[in-house]
Amino acid sequence: MSRAEVLEEIVKKRLLYWPSSEIYGGVGGFYDYGPLGVQIRRNIVEKWRRVFVLPYQETIVEVETPVVMPEPVFKASGHLDHFTDYIVACTKCGRKYRADHLVEEELAKKGVKISTEGLSAADLQRLIGEYKIVCPACGGPLGGVETFNLLFKTTIGPYSESAGYLRPETAQGIFVAFPRLAEYVGRRHPFGVAQIGRVARNEISPRGGLIRLREFTQMEIELFFDPQNPSCPYLPEVENTEVPIVPEEYVAKGKTDPLYLTAKQIVERGYANEWMAFFMALATRFLRELGVPVERQKFLGKLPHERAHYSAKSYDQMVLTERFGWVEVSGHAYRTDYDLSGHSRYSGREMYLERRLPVPKEVEVARLYPNPAAIRERYGDKIGEVIKAIKEHEGALLEAFKAGKEEAVAGPFVVTRDMVYIKTERRKTDLEKFIPHVVEPSFGLDRIFYVVLEHAVTEEDGRRYLRLPPDVAPVAACILPIVKKSEYVEIGKRLARRLAQEGFYVLYEDDGTIGSRYALCDEIGTPLAVTIDEKTPAEGTVTVRDRDTRRQVRVKTEQVQAFVALVTRGTPFQEAAEALEAR
Amino acid sequence: MSRAEVLEEIVKKRLLYWPSSEIYGGVGGFYDYGPLGVQIRRNIVEKWRRVFVLPYQETIVEVETPVVMPEPVFKASGHLDHFTDYIVACTKCGRKYRADHLVEEELAKKGVKISTEGLSAADLQRLIGEYKIVCPACGGPLGGVETFNLLFKTTIGPYSESAGYLRPETAQGIFVAFPRLAEYVGRRHPFGVAQIGRVARNEISPRGGLIRLREFTQMEIELFFDPQNPSCPYLPEVENTEVPIVPEEYVAKGKTDPLYLTAKQIVERGYANEWMAFFMALATRFLRELGVPVERQKFLGKLPHERAHYSAKSYDQMVLTERFGWVEVSGHAYRTDYDLSGHSRYSGREMYLERRLPVPKEVEVARLYPNPAAIRERYGDKIGEVIKAIKEHEGALLEAFKAGKEEAVAGPFVVTRDMVYIKTERRKTDLEKFIPHVVEPSFGLDRIFYVVLEHAVTEEDGRRYLRLPPDVAPVAACILPIVKKSEYVEIGKRLARRLAQEGFYVLYEDDGTIGSRYALCDEIGTPLAVTIDEKTPAEGTVTVRDRDTRRQVRVKTEQVQAFVALVTRGTPFQEAAEALEAR
Repeated sequence: MSRAEVLEEIVKKRLLYWPSSEIYGGVGGFYDYGPLGVQIRRNIVEKWRRVFVLPYQETIVEVETPVVMPEPVFKASGHLDHFTDYIVACTKCGRKYRADHLVEEELAKKGVKISTEGLSAADLQRLIGEYKIVCPACGGPLGGVETFNLLFKTTIGPYSESAGYLRPETAQGIFVAFPRLAEYVGRRHPFGVAQIGRVARNEISPRGGLIRLREFTQMEIELFFDPQNPSCPYLPEVENTEVPIVPEEYVAKGKTDPLYLTAKQIVERGYANEWMAFFMALATRFLRELGVPVERQKFLGKLPHERAHYSAKSYDQMVLTERFGWVEVSGHAYRTDYDLSGHSRYSGREMYLERRLPVPKEVEVARLYPNPAAIRERYGDKIGEVIKAIKEHEGALLEAFKAGKEEAVAGPFVVTRDMVYIKTERRKTDLEKFIPHVVEPSFGLDRIFYVVLEHAVTEEDGRRYLRLPPDVAPVAACILPIVKKSEYVEIGKRLARRLAQEGFYVLYEDDGTIGSRYALCDEIGTPLAVTIDEKTPAEGTVTVRDRDTRRQVRVKTEQVQAFVALVTRGTPFQEAAEALEAR
Repeated sequence: MSRAEVLEEIVKKRLLYWPSSEIYGGVGGFYDYGPLGVQIRRNIVEKWRRVFVLPYQETIVEVETPVVMPEPVFKASGHLDHFTDYIVACTKCGRKYRADHLVEEELAKKGVKISTEGLSAADLQRLIGEYKIVCPACGGPLGGVETFNLLFKTTIGPYSESAGYLRPETAQGIFVAFPRLAEYVGRRHPFGVAQIGRVARNEISPRGGLIRLREFTQMEIELFFDPQNPSCPYLPEVENTEVPIVPEEYVAKGKTDPLYLTAKQIVERGYANEWMAFFMALATRFLRELGVPVERQKFLGKLPHERAHYSAKSYDQMVLTERFGWVEVSGHAYRTDYDLSGHSRYSGREMYLERRLPVPKEVEVARLYPNPAAIRERYGDKIGEVIKAIKEHEGALLEAFKAGKEEAVAGPFVVTRDMVYIKTERRKTDLEKFIPHVVEPSFGLDRIFYVVLEHAVTEEDGRRYLRLPPDVAPVAACILPIVKKSEYVEIGKRLARRLAQEGFYVLYEDDGTIGSRYALCDEIGTPLAVTIDEKTPAEGTVTVRDRDTRRQVRVKTEQVQAFVALVTRGTPFQEAAEALEAR
């Protein structure tokens, strides 16, 4: 049996996840996570935070913004125009297909192997005609290839014109809040903002289990830096980390095998800037510590037509799975100033940081001053608010009036040309405004969850277990009375309860043979199994068994908690046992 | 200045939260949480888990289900019919209002004080006519009072008829997955299922900052039990906990002051069953440990017309705030079998557990057997799947055919009467099926976040600080070189980095006077301030200052981490200092 098949059995038996709304026949692209699944996911999230955020908290902060966002956000971000897939419908049975997938699959059936990534509607239409592709379900003729927007749409409040969308990435919540975030960090730069949360993409025909979901969890960082100074102060910490990379120029030549370059070499050869290389090195380490060896990872350069609309350079971090082949688990994009510029343009708010000039310079600056009389005439008592809004939107208003416009918008107010004076002033300054550039590492939790499980499946000497890292395992320890005797049961239950109250997840089980219960613990990757046996009541000791080696040591019952704590935090079994013996 | 006003200043200055999509003018009912806000929220969630889930993990498990759910869920749950508010529009300017709020406020302006909770559309219409209520914005006449459904609607996939909704409570994800969850716990009962996640309610006109949001985070438990045996094994642990309660019969008489009853007395007097009383006791303790004294809490009984459509008994846990008066922070509902029965009826799936009878009984059971020939005729190769579906839907099919129907639905298949045989069998059994009843404690994270902050505001001797419990404070320790001298700065930065790598949130600051920096730490409720001073480089010691008492102790620099860990886990300052000295 393959690892993927073993995993499938475990998933079903231990209910790690299952299709959502199953009792109503299910809905494609939605999954529920069972208790063990939730615990593994939470552990992966915490590990991500420990690798990417906590050690760098002086630079990287975290925010939480809503899933539902108003329409202007996605006009500005380009998602309303560009976040689309091609769709084609059968003119006979009405079934709808994602056009690029359909063409690729139908051609594969005919023995033609091509990649449809980045093809236009016209290209796909041509292939459908050329190869006489029909509806695979009913054989009917296909209609025209059309674009389909992948945003889930809804209405906010009781006015039908107030469209809202479920965010397709957590990133937009960060970009939109940029002025506040820049204020929070005191306009220091570089700075990064992390967000972990649910996002939704209305896939035309999701499939592949957890790999292509309509709703899923992202862990993202937007790192804002001065494009004139893209240096990352943390790079030296990871500069010797080896990263498996297929640079764009290799991809363009059809190569798929990675080079093994250090983060430093990646920067030196110009394959990525320092921040990208830093995050790619951390991502390599993150997946490796989750149990995915570097040989089963690679960062695949994306060619221009394969990149998202906002990206000037992208690498997909891929992991080789048994079930789905190479799967993207994180995307590393150089988003430049695409998003901040877009939001600035659409909102009229300046989105900038300031850099210090080596030598102060004299500049001519246009300044805008309110004309109170004209403002009062139109807005009466609201004059204070209007003046505030004019100051906040000074940049956008100046731009509009200089371009000859007669009025412009400042927040909720329309400002006409006569409401302001424009004066040109000369002043000395050593500060220069700039729109920061952005490097974004973006992780898909659900996919990482899957690849971690698949890589954890181990079959050895006729037994199977999940070799999950102890800090990711859903249960820290199993508590097992060797036989169901009331004396043992009582001690076991008390121990389980105590560990539970200390914040550990434990599994108490007294039904079945001890062998079958060890098997059960192994199957969910529990690092330690604690057995209460004949010596326990008299001597106050238990045995603790290591999942991977099946070695057992005898420790004092009161030391179990310390043992579990050590192993959960990463101390190897043997070392933990010795440390306790020494106490 | 009131506590609420002080808090408002701190929120603005330290950017704990702000209106979402502000650069686009904001959207009512949506807020972003800044870095410190996120950390406080996460700490509250972890505390909730430590109080409600972890110690009871043998009984209560956790799941994670999607925000978007398909339409049948909300038909069955009653939300499509009953989850509504009354809306009224101005016929002149078109503005829309939540009718009950409008009537209540406009009558208050006229000196008439009434509660509109539970009034019907006709009642509200009558009051509008009687008191000649007009549009408060433009004075225009109001139209008719209509119902407005509060579910956010969307479309799943490319078929416009596939409606989906954003869940208004996490509970439905649990009910819909009941068959899987019952399987997970091995059909043992009682058992509970917790879920923490985002929900959305399309309020007509949200206001009150974080108190009435359109998108917010819930922490819920659905506790499933046998209605013939509503006993809670954990009740003895909390039976002497005092709970401030206003029972329904008091509410009916217009009383609002709580009785202080123990959980045990609440059960004895019939005010709630054991599970409800248990959760109410835990909830009292939870809020108290978060800094809300019991005197500022009460559980308000809900009269029948005030309850949600699914509830046979409800208490709202209220907290007295300065800014909003009494605010509901959790709801405790006895949902009976309302939800499971509804989903069973709509899905055709049995939702049951089994109880053991004291004496086995002989029963006549109707059993349903597939007729392979008839099935093959209609479904051909799919016969295996159809037989499986028939078995899964045996109960619903039996019911339909016994009621004389000629066909019924089993999952994706239509089953006609000729496809099955119905046989009546006599058999002995000591098991009896039942639909479990449900007790639900449901917490609103955002409101708890607000009340915790408001209660933490402290002004003493002319200084202000947030007296947040150390396990809730966003930052564990501030690291402050007493003056900005490179020797101190270096030690401080190294210490900050080390604590950060160990998983603590810290704040390093070397700008400004030491007094102003202490004030800054106080303002965000940092329990400890660590100062690097003239003795540090030579002696290897620092001072650690207690936020609440401003006491300072001198400890070894290498002991700071242990100090922070102790205090974060709840050890009082003095005790922590002594424990370290003893080492």
